Amino acid sequence: MRAAFYISDGTAITSEVFGHALLSLFPTEFIHFTIPFVETLEKALEVKEKINREFKRSGETPLVFHTFVNPEIREIIDSCEGVIYNFLEHFVSPLEKQLGIPAKPKAHRTHSIHENSYDNRIDAVNYALANDDGSSVSNYEHADVILVGVSRSGKTPSSLYLALQYGIKAANYPFTDDDMDELKLPVFLKTHKKKLFGLTIDPQRLMDIRHGRMSNSKYASARQCRMEIREVEKLYKKEKIPFLNTTNFSVEEISAKIMQDTGLQRYKY
Amino acid sequence: MRAAFYISDGTAITSEVFGHALLSLFPTEFIHFTIPFVETLEKALEVKEKINREFKRSGETPLVFHTFVNPEIREIIDSCEGVIYNFLEHFVSPLEKQLGIPAKPKAHRTHSIHENSYDNRIDAVNYALANDDGSSVSNYEHADVILVGVSRSGKTPSSLYLALQYGIKAANYPFTDDDMDELKLPVFLKTHKKKLFGLTIDPQRLMDIRHGRMSNSKYASARQCRMEIREVEKLYKKEKIPFLNTTNFSVEEISAKIMQDTGLQRYKY
Repeated sequence: MRAAFYISDGTAITSEVFGHALLSLFPTEFIHFTIPFVETLEKALEVKEKINREFKRSGETPLVFHTFVNPEIREIIDSCEGVIYNFLEHFVSPLEKQLGIPAKPKAHRTHSIHENSYDNRIDAVNYALANDDGSSVSNYEHADVILVGVSRSGKTPSSLYLALQYGIKAANYPFTDDDMDELKLPVFLKTHKKKLFGLTIDPQRLMDIRHGRMSNSKYASARQCRMEIREVEKLYKKEKIPFLNTTNFSVEEISAKIMQDTGLQRYKY
Repeated sequence: MRAAFYISDGTAITSEVFGHALLSLFPTEFIHFTIPFVETLEKALEVKEKINREFKRSGETPLVFHTFVNPEIREIIDSCEGVIYNFLEHFVSPLEKQLGIPAKPKAHRTHSIHENSYDNRIDAVNYALANDDGSSVSNYEHADVILVGVSRSGKTPSSLYLALQYGIKAANYPFTDDDMDELKLPVFLKTHKKKLFGLTIDPQRLMDIRHGRMSNSKYASARQCRMEIREVEKLYKKEKIPFLNTTNFSVEEISAKIMQDTGLQRYKY
């Protein structure tokens, strides 16, 4: 199997996203190697050796995705027996022309603590944790959005992703079996109605997820799942709460859709 | 101020990472617009209009980062008055030659529920939450790594990021003031000693963070912070637990370093 390398002097997250976006277009498998923090010439030489060994092992030219800006490290990596894909190389000089200013390669620490939004993202993570699953309902005035929905409809992972990726403070509140007789919005949610965003999910998928957690319980029964979903969807419509069916969407997609539908903007770049 | 657009028929996360990596090289500010889920020609025309409006407003050519593979949508976006940066365009055909197979653009949903690792990443998030902050110490046999450290040294956000980004199951356990007399490893950690990874932080930075949480408390005092850090670092050294000073690192960097130092591999791509 052919090897794919994602290498950088930082986290290598950018190289991974870049390489993965490209390789996902090809219906074939690769062995993936992510190598972050290649900050010295010694480390670069080790990496080069590793790439060359993979070439020997597989007989197939390794694919190397990197974003090095240091010319000496870059030269070492570029001299390996893999084929190099470096998007900075292709795009920096057209961008310099367009912007009329030279690039400052030293600033290239995309995923570091020095990005503007960093502290805000960590605050947002702490906010999401402190306001997860209805555990506290008194801080909703600080929320950017309050996700509501039944248990296991995707609220918690989406809240966390909104925090980590976008710096958005997302609380979440669960509607439980006890709420289902005459389901209505509790006062503490009504006060912040404009911040509410509903999640729903196909009852069959909900059942599968709940069975994984508590099989053969009332909680995971077909009847219960159908009833809860019916009730919350009725509530969303009655109260005009925007909502999303999460069945076929990843956390990334759910979060991006929430951003789009609510018009929320990421907290700075 | 010049506008930068990140557009896609999916989450636009790839476009954001790509564009942000490039723009972070330039010491200038932009207005950022992320527009996900541009899946129809109508939506594409709206986006084109928005780009053209930004050109009129600012008098500066907007920068447009996109990853469209649908030729009709792409044609509309490419005909706007912004300047287009599309890395797929540059790299797909060299990759096709290298791999000897044609790209299958329909597979381009990098951040969707269809990626191999999806369920595992959600399981890992649930694991991190259930095993956060020592809340449960009986599931450590399922952990890939157990982060240890004093309160506010970065354990929780790092555990969540390891889960969401890499599908790694990270528990975390806090050493508190009560543990500090004769600090030693509790039995339930000793049993899983090979999984332990220690976090530490400069006492001054710890103090600042704790003051933000509980100012003028013993918890946030210089003396307490210094003492706790001294004790945990002594423990790490005595027990030969690998550890990292998180003071100057982002959650992404801490996570990437943990992956690197422990030799853990991401759960599939």
